Amino acid sequence: MKKVECAVLAFLLTAGVVQAQIRHEIEIPDLKGYQTLKCDFHIHTVFSDGTVWPTVRVDEAYQEGLDAISLTEHIEYRPHQQDIRASHNRSFEIAEEAARRKNILLIRGSEITRSMPPGHANALFLTDADSLDRPDYRDAFEAAKRQNAFIFWNHPGWDAQQPDTTLWWDEHTELLEKGCMHGIEVFNVNYSPEAHQWCLDKKLTMLGNSDIHQPIQSNIHQQLQTGRTHRPMTLVFARERSVEGIREALLARRTAVYFDDTLVGEAVYLHELFENSLEIEEVERTEKKVTLQVFNHSDLIFHLKKTAHDPRLIYFREYTLWPHGLHTITIYLDGGISSGRMEFEVTNLWIAPNQALKYVYEI
Amino acid sequence: MKKVECAVLAFLLTAGVVQAQIRHEIEIPDLKGYQTLKCDFHIHTVFSDGTVWPTVRVDEAYQEGLDAISLTEHIEYRPHQQDIRASHNRSFEIAEEAARRKNILLIRGSEITRSMPPGHANALFLTDADSLDRPDYRDAFEAAKRQNAFIFWNHPGWDAQQPDTTLWWDEHTELLEKGCMHGIEVFNVNYSPEAHQWCLDKKLTMLGNSDIHQPIQSNIHQQLQTGRTHRPMTLVFARERSVEGIREALLARRTAVYFDDTLVGEAVYLHELFENSLEIEEVERTEKKVTLQVFNHSDLIFHLKKTAHDPRLIYFREYTLWPHGLHTITIYLDGGISSGRMEFEVTNLWIAPNQALKYVYEI
Amino acid sequence: MKKVECAVLAFLLTAGVVQAQIRHEIEIPDLKGYQTLKCDFHIHTVFSDGTVWPTVRVDEAYQEGLDAISLTEHIEYRPHQQDIRASHNRSFEIAEEAARRKNILLIRGSEITRSMPPGHANALFLTDADSLDRPDYRDAFEAAKRQNAFIFWNHPGWDAQQPDTTLWWDEHTELLEKGCMHGIEVFNVNYSPEAHQWCLDKKLTMLGNSDIHQPIQSNIHQQLQTGRTHRPMTLVFARERSVEGIREALLARRTAVYFDDTLVGEAVYLHELFENSLEIEEVERTEKKVTLQVFNHSDLIFHLKKTAHDPRLIYFREYTLWPHGLHTITIYLDGGISSGRMEFEVTNLWIAPNQALKYVYEI
Amino acid sequence: MKKVECAVLAFLLTAGVVQAQIRHEIEIPDLKGYQTLKCDFHIHTVFSDGTVWPTVRVDEAYQEGLDAISLTEHIEYRPHQQDIRASHNRSFEIAEEAARRKNILLIRGSEITRSMPPGHANALFLTDADSLDRPDYRDAFEAAKRQNAFIFWNHPGWDAQQPDTTLWWDEHTELLEKGCMHGIEVFNVNYSPEAHQWCLDKKLTMLGNSDIHQPIQSNIHQQLQTGRTHRPMTLVFARERSVEGIREALLARRTAVYFDDTLVGEAVYLHELFENSLEIEEVERTEKKVTLQVFNHSDLIFHLKKTAHDPRLIYFREYTLWPHGLHTITIYLDGGISSGRMEFEVTNLWIAPNQALKYVYEI
Repeated sequence: MKKVECAVLAFLLTAGVVQAQIRHEIEIPDLKGYQTLKCDFHIHTVFSDGTVWPTVRVDEAYQEGLDAISLTEHIEYRPHQQDIRASHNRSFEIAEEAARRKNILLIRGSEITRSMPPGHANALFLTDADSLDRPDYRDAFEAAKRQNAFIFWNHPGWDAQQPDTTLWWDEHTELLEKGCMHGIEVFNVNYSPEAHQWCLDKKLTMLGNSDIHQPIQSNIHQQLQTGRTHRPMTLVFARERSVEGIREALLARRTAVYFDDTLVGEAVYLHELFENSLEIEEVERTEKKVTLQVFNHSDLIFHLKKTAHDPRLIYFREYTLWPHGLHTITIYLDGGISSGRMEFEVTNLWIAPNQALKYVYEI
Repeated sequence: MKKVECAVLAFLLTAGVVQAQIRHEIEIPDLKGYQTLKCDFHIHTVFSDGTVWPTVRVDEAYQEGLDAISLTEHIEYRPHQQDIRASHNRSFEIAEEAARRKNILLIRGSEITRSMPPGHANALFLTDADSLDRPDYRDAFEAAKRQNAFIFWNHPGWDAQQPDTTLWWDEHTELLEKGCMHGIEVFNVNYSPEAHQWCLDKKLTMLGNSDIHQPIQSNIHQQLQTGRTHRPMTLVFARERSVEGIREALLARRTAVYFDDTLVGEAVYLHELFENSLEIEEVERTEKKVTLQVFNHSDLIFHLKKTAHDPRLIYFREYTLWPHGLHTITIYLDGGISSGRMEFEVTNLWIAPNQALKYVYEI
Repeated sequence: MKKVECAVLAFLLTAGVVQAQIRHEIEIPDLKGYQTLKCDFHIHTVFSDGTVWPTVRVDEAYQEGLDAISLTEHIEYRPHQQDIRASHNRSFEIAEEAARRKNILLIRGSEITRSMPPGHANALFLTDADSLDRPDYRDAFEAAKRQNAFIFWNHPGWDAQQPDTTLWWDEHTELLEKGCMHGIEVFNVNYSPEAHQWCLDKKLTMLGNSDIHQPIQSNIHQQLQTGRTHRPMTLVFARERSVEGIREALLARRTAVYFDDTLVGEAVYLHELFENSLEIEEVERTEKKVTLQVFNHSDLIFHLKKTAHDPRLIYFREYTLWPHGLHTITIYLDGGISSGRMEFEVTNLWIAPNQALKYVYEI
Repeated sequence: MKKVECAVLAFLLTAGVVQAQIRHEIEIPDLKGYQTLKCDFHIHTVFSDGTVWPTVRVDEAYQEGLDAISLTEHIEYRPHQQDIRASHNRSFEIAEEAARRKNILLIRGSEITRSMPPGHANALFLTDADSLDRPDYRDAFEAAKRQNAFIFWNHPGWDAQQPDTTLWWDEHTELLEKGCMHGIEVFNVNYSPEAHQWCLDKKLTMLGNSDIHQPIQSNIHQQLQTGRTHRPMTLVFARERSVEGIREALLARRTAVYFDDTLVGEAVYLHELFENSLEIEEVERTEKKVTLQVFNHSDLIFHLKKTAHDPRLIYFREYTLWPHGLHTITIYLDGGISSGRMEFEVTNLWIAPNQALKYVYEI
């Protein structure tokens, strides 16, 4: 009887955890020489103003097919502190073992949470988050820098801090010049064209994150569109799947931002993602037409839109390449031509504000 | 500028909360004189061994169309106490305002958590949960009784405490005789035929609850079967939609247990739920056949199976009445009869272990 | 035994049909004095180049919550005629009884199917579709006109007929002047800004239809986005739910086009749909802020975007009112004001090409 | 201009067909030496009493991840013949090219459709379906046999033909003895325990098929349970993925029947399917317990239920291995033992009526 009781206690200790979990891989192709890692670098738990225990974030990341996350609790904003008192390192420590077991890369991070300017910023790859708890924001950024943190400006267009216009302040110039700003969130709840342009102009890394506070499946967007929805995320093109691999890639600006149907990033990366997603086969060729079979083996959708082109090549105005879809596309040859260039843009791949990736396919 | 900062702070304080929420009503008909309330009386949060903040449970209840919940934290098992120290009343207090705003009835409760016997039990309608924190389990039950609590035995067939056989112990007889046990969970993770029979024999209230620890949408069952899944719950047939109404109904044993496709309860309630769910119209009658149109306007599914009957009435062997479905059923009249009794059982309405509700429809 | 055999035969004759069906109502509010009917006026079956039997279209309409459909078989294009030979009226006749039983309004129509110009056109409210089978397209249109048909130009921007530019041809002017064109499809597979502008300029009725050929649930868009997807449709604001009611409303141009998340129509109708979808309650007012609770009881989503406004009123830049969602919106009052005008546009309600509905809410 | 018109015509001819399609593979492991092919041998189109064009059945099979189908039109029951007149071979001919392009194995078959006895039967691998159109059912069966057809009895328990009891008639004995019956449908709308037992006793092949008449996605079961639903099907364990491979396997009785969550078949096949679906790793072993990590990489669900066992081995009463789920199972060691046999049955793998597959796992 005594033994049974022990067993029961052990059972109790794990009862909240032992449930089967299913991982849904996100199928986005790798680039030559790089793995495409799916990352969310902006997440909260009950240890700041979130509403879930840290281990839940690991479970969610596993279930959604992520490779890496960071629990970036607010340093300065801890509304649950009447009930929860802990080091700023605590949520990382609690999640660490779960992450190891599920093979999720867990990055120690924190959110420096100030009024504008400079607003909010996340620091990743910290060794001690408590050292960022300083009255002057400059000291907090410096403390992060001393730990070789990768620091990025969060949601610069957040309407609570910049209600009408997304401004760049002198304080951001100062942070940038001091080596305390390496990237900007181009997406967080909303896409920011200003942040996108700043990343291009100032050679900063583009990030996109969920900033999730509640259980992620309760997100209204995910509940309503059950089919294809994913959280906003940063795609990191890394030499290896490791925390160090992510750090190297972030510093080298090898990222793209993935939200809804849209990818934002440098043309060179989006171009390769587009090509590596598709298998194109010419299944028929006559004097009058060419028929292509296009298989999109990724989770990405591609909305094509014809641009200026040789009018003797007659093809779609707009066409959608569905994720995992098999497509048959016919191009008619007029005026006696036997070859030509299909020209189109992929309207949901954004290489600059209001500028889609252009593509040419020779037939 | 100062003003904006204030606004910003106010914004910050609510940012984790202000997200749109959608309520999905559970459509189960009322009974004559009673409202059918959908209740979950067994729920955990981070204040015991759950993984969400108490307000999340209110949001989930709102979204899933529940009427009432109780956050029944373990008195004796608090694995997060290194980080969270609080009164046993605290999770109720935190959730109270959210429940009021969303019109969810929040019942103060707690789980007395002991090894077998007597195992675990929930006490509802407490005034002070802290008073249940007593070394001897008898004192804990007595403290609940003094607060006029409704007390029920949780998951008697839990394999961690009763690995092979579901036993009734002398300790349960003692609790029952002292007025410290009013009901039993007939469903919690699994259905317990023993608990079902005990409720019938000893005139105890039948309950079914989720015992949820993690975010409810992460439940694997709900993720895989997105269409029609609901959490296990207790249907309470109450005179009014209030905490007092629920207490009166629980004491009067006016409940049914709803899990998966199945309802467990007294025949009189299941019979009325079945009838009130259906609209039946005779759309055609000839010498040879009668055609019925049956509309099921509830969320309930009904699996019908023919029982012994007049063989001159020729109709289905098995038939499913789908939720919100419009059905056409034809009954053939053989041997010159012009009327008769369709006899069948509803195999997913259980009035006793291995006993389905029987029904006769006269045509 | 003989009797049983009869029963069996009767059974056989209906076996393909008797399956339960579930109707999912589309919840879009009525307008003052008018019912909002959900209609699809462009549908094919095996009787032209579709791939389903006519009754399937009635079942689909029932399941998707439509009020009215028309089976508009091509007059001139019948690729299945090696196997199927029938009058152009035949698909209507086959579907008629099913429509009556399911309370779907079935409108006799046909598609005049010519190369460009004038391209394809649908004629509704025909009495005899066969009379449209004439070599010269002008004779076909005249035959329709003689039956008092409502005639509209289908998919003017279809890339198979207008590969690069959506042109209005002299032939369309001629048809218009002869009273043989009353509307244009603003949406069919794609939205056509040209068609939208022509409807505004020439006072033509706006239509949106599915042009479905295959079983509608096999539509890739519907399969991938299971949550909120609906077919493209024409909303008809009718005095009564009848074929005659629809005819009157179409001629009076009381329609809107509903596809994906978007509504296209006259500002007056979209304005009223927006208002009738919402319940707004002021739940808190202090010197510093006003809090609104907004409940959207429709299936429609509304994407709000702030326009030029009094900067002392501080509120969202962008906000989404989710279908059936409960929303809490806070407006901060700066500079001592105690009232003001929230100004925004609803970016998915289109009153002209590139022009969203503007709205002001006084607080 | 002339050229464009040609292109337009070509476009028209394919417009109903060219839509992207997505294939969802059904993940069920192969057996040693055999591929597991997913087959549906009972399907109708408009050429008998179905409601879709034959090519739709190929599209559906592609989308649902099937390997092989047969369009088994009724020989004697053609309710659409007022509009459609064709050879009994016609639906096969129409679907053939589509099947070739989508790599679906298309088997020429037909349904001999008689009153009971002998009821309905499907003949597969025909060379000429028209030759089965004979007044006497014996002649129809003989005509099929002469073509070396594989013949099976359809839905023996269909309530329209056997309203109360599923009987085996002398006529079936005669067909069996003449080599005109090789298998029976164990599942068609419902599971038939009688058919299951007859297959075991008389060494007949077990089959399960959809008998689908309408578009398959309109099936109410599939609409309500979007997550995991699949049509009823026959799993064929074939030496090669070809029509000939299927014929060989059917004659050798290497099949299992897959419907809802359940598999029906010979113990040897179900045992291997169970084992090949799982990866089991011992992740921890102490004196007190053993912890297993079990990954189910198939689409199959397995419901485990403990059977008689050594009581010193303490483990679950019931446990579910979810499709694609990662599970952690702990077994406690009592009474000083360090190894033992976990004994359970898999309640949804049926090796005989009311008999589940038993399994022992040694730890």
